[in-house]
Amino acid sequence: MPAFKFTIDAESPETWARAGTIQTPHGIIHTPIYMPVGTQATVKSVSPEELRAAGAEIILANTYHLMLRPGSPLIDTLGGLHTFMHWDGPILTDSGGFQVWSLGHLRKLTEDGATFKSHLDGSEHVLTPERVMQIEAELGSDIILPLDICSPYPCSPQEARQAMEQTHRWEERALVAKERYRPEQTLFGIVQGAFEPELRAESARIIGNMPFPGLSIGGLSVGEPKEQMWEMLRHVTPALPRDKPRHLLGVGSPEDVVIGTGLGMDMFDCVLPTRVARHGGLFTQYGRVNIKSARFRTVAGPIEEGCDCYTCRNYSAAYVHHLIRTEEQLYYRLGSIHNIHFMLRLARQLRASIIDGSYPIFRDEFLARYVPASE
Amino acid sequence: MPAFKFTIDAESPETWARAGTIQTPHGIIHTPIYMPVGTQATVKSVSPEELRAAGAEIILANTYHLMLRPGSPLIDTLGGLHTFMHWDGPILTDSGGFQVWSLGHLRKLTEDGATFKSHLDGSEHVLTPERVMQIEAELGSDIILPLDICSPYPCSPQEARQAMEQTHRWEERALVAKERYRPEQTLFGIVQGAFEPELRAESARIIGNMPFPGLSIGGLSVGEPKEQMWEMLRHVTPALPRDKPRHLLGVGSPEDVVIGTGLGMDMFDCVLPTRVARHGGLFTQYGRVNIKSARFRTVAGPIEEGCDCYTCRNYSAAYVHHLIRTEEQLYYRLGSIHNIHFMLRLARQLRASIIDGSYPIFRDEFLARYVPASE
Ligand SMILES: [Zn+2]
Ligand SMILES: [Zn+2]
Repeated sequence: MPAFKFTIDAESPETWARAGTIQTPHGIIHTPIYMPVGTQATVKSVSPEELRAAGAEIILANTYHLMLRPGSPLIDTLGGLHTFMHWDGPILTDSGGFQVWSLGHLRKLTEDGATFKSHLDGSEHVLTPERVMQIEAELGSDIILPLDICSPYPCSPQEARQAMEQTHRWEERALVAKERYRPEQTLFGIVQGAFEPELRAESARIIGNMPFPGLSIGGLSVGEPKEQMWEMLRHVTPALPRDKPRHLLGVGSPEDVVIGTGLGMDMFDCVLPTRVARHGGLFTQYGRVNIKSARFRTVAGPIEEGCDCYTCRNYSAAYVHHLIRTEEQLYYRLGSIHNIHFMLRLARQLRASIIDGSYPIFRDEFLARYVPASE
Repeated sequence: MPAFKFTIDAESPETWARAGTIQTPHGIIHTPIYMPVGTQATVKSVSPEELRAAGAEIILANTYHLMLRPGSPLIDTLGGLHTFMHWDGPILTDSGGFQVWSLGHLRKLTEDGATFKSHLDGSEHVLTPERVMQIEAELGSDIILPLDICSPYPCSPQEARQAMEQTHRWEERALVAKERYRPEQTLFGIVQGAFEPELRAESARIIGNMPFPGLSIGGLSVGEPKEQMWEMLRHVTPALPRDKPRHLLGVGSPEDVVIGTGLGMDMFDCVLPTRVARHGGLFTQYGRVNIKSARFRTVAGPIEEGCDCYTCRNYSAAYVHHLIRTEEQLYYRLGSIHNIHFMLRLARQLRASIIDGSYPIFRDEFLARYVPASE
């Protein structure tokens, strides 16, 4: 397999949606795609075999968490992240930047990079564009991201520009540093620009023209109203090259994936499906239900009629309700499998609708039917 | 399949060990056997498919827990315990008695039965021999146990006799009541007698001669020294009929299963393998190790060399160590699978050694090698 190749299989004429195929050293990804998140080298409570069965084609892991525990040199020694976590499909790792910015007072920013204190033991660590390339080379993931600055919401236009320009300089350094490591890894660029339309467009043009084979859109879904996120994409997508896959970082819910696809996004990652499952929130075509609710106590049918996930094929909603009520571990697995399966089926439906030209109808029908949860 | 049939396939001439086959409506059990415990209709963190793959042939579920939550009528309505929990193999349910005695001041004992307050919501419930037969019929398990009294350790000879005789009277009533329900269910008798050798022998003779197709030995492993438990079995086994399977209730550890087999026991159940796994205790041929220990941090090999369980085939000890250190749910699954697989492999090894005549050697070598954990 080539290190990386993106092909556009179909485009939706009335929207920016496209269906594509990404080749990676660990297999093919069909877009639009949802990527389950395995923060600490495990998608919480779900096994790699179950991810495959649910239709997962690529997962995301977090560099920040893995560099602290168990450490990237150890993962390297043990054969890399794929062997370590027993997932032989493609893996995307983020840069650690997002988590570092979330640390607040525990981090310090300079031109060179970021210094931060571990949330685990207070130990001091330095992340530079070059160091991040080394860590991700040790992790051995297929798609890697460069160090970037994720501005808070809200932030001033001056801060937004400063952070964006800093990110751009770091990305240039990352491109140079990456040359020292694994040619089979693919470095995506990251588009920033906070909530300034002209900065977003500028960042998209600049990063889109640098030799990154793919692009992640960062700094969104950080607390802003949803409409503001979509507004930013309306400025980003037209400024991006058509032939590079676009990854909307940290997004999202089922409705976000449906809308984001129409705004030209190809890849989505989010902990939401597994996180809400842990609290009882399970996806259906009509919105999220809470399986803890007494109304499921006696339901002999599955969580969602017609769902062919492992959970719905083998267990009644009443049993899943019983498991969460008794706080049994198996619940977390069964709930997470259903939600991941839901997201991946949704991605396949989106892809099929783009290919057969019905995406706008699919989107409108989905959004009319699906009641979003207030997060 | 007949409701129940026990065949002895081989006996160990120098010991009381035997290898047998039990037929049930849900499949065949090869003895000696370890039965994983699914207290609340789930073996904690392990799926039915994983139990099968680990070699499980029968599981145990707890009547006390299930009658309180979700309730046996609901399980009946939903198709019985097998359908409810998606396990199509044999199931044994206990009587709830053991848990009720553990409630202490929350229960009250009369000739008719036991009144107790739920540990969940304080609601009052009555268990009589007849009621227990009804509940277990609603659960639909393959092997059911009658209401008994589990004496505390220590207890006076007078109390021991009183509890034993009460249990015997209740068992007679259970035999009568059982006739009203499912003929495909098999009611085992329970031998009691606390720690009085002559009571144990008396109970074994009396219950062994009643029309129970199998026998459970109750009231052991309740805090007494191990040697005292074995001493009781030395009085029980010779007083039991040869042609009925013998179940040692709530026992035990790997070494207990090895020793108990030599004392004529055919079936074992215990939460120990899954409970100790949750705290990091994993079985090996040399005793229990704690996977949390720093010495596993960098181990590229499996938890136990040569183990062919799902965990050991696919994950390094270093990864399992990482998962427990980061408190990831997948750890509980991987650890439990390894320990259940260990117990079931041990059961198969015991059976093979009985069949080929080498059980005493197997036992002695195992005990010489395996360092028991102090519980
Ligand atoms: Zn489902
Ligand atoms: Zn193993």
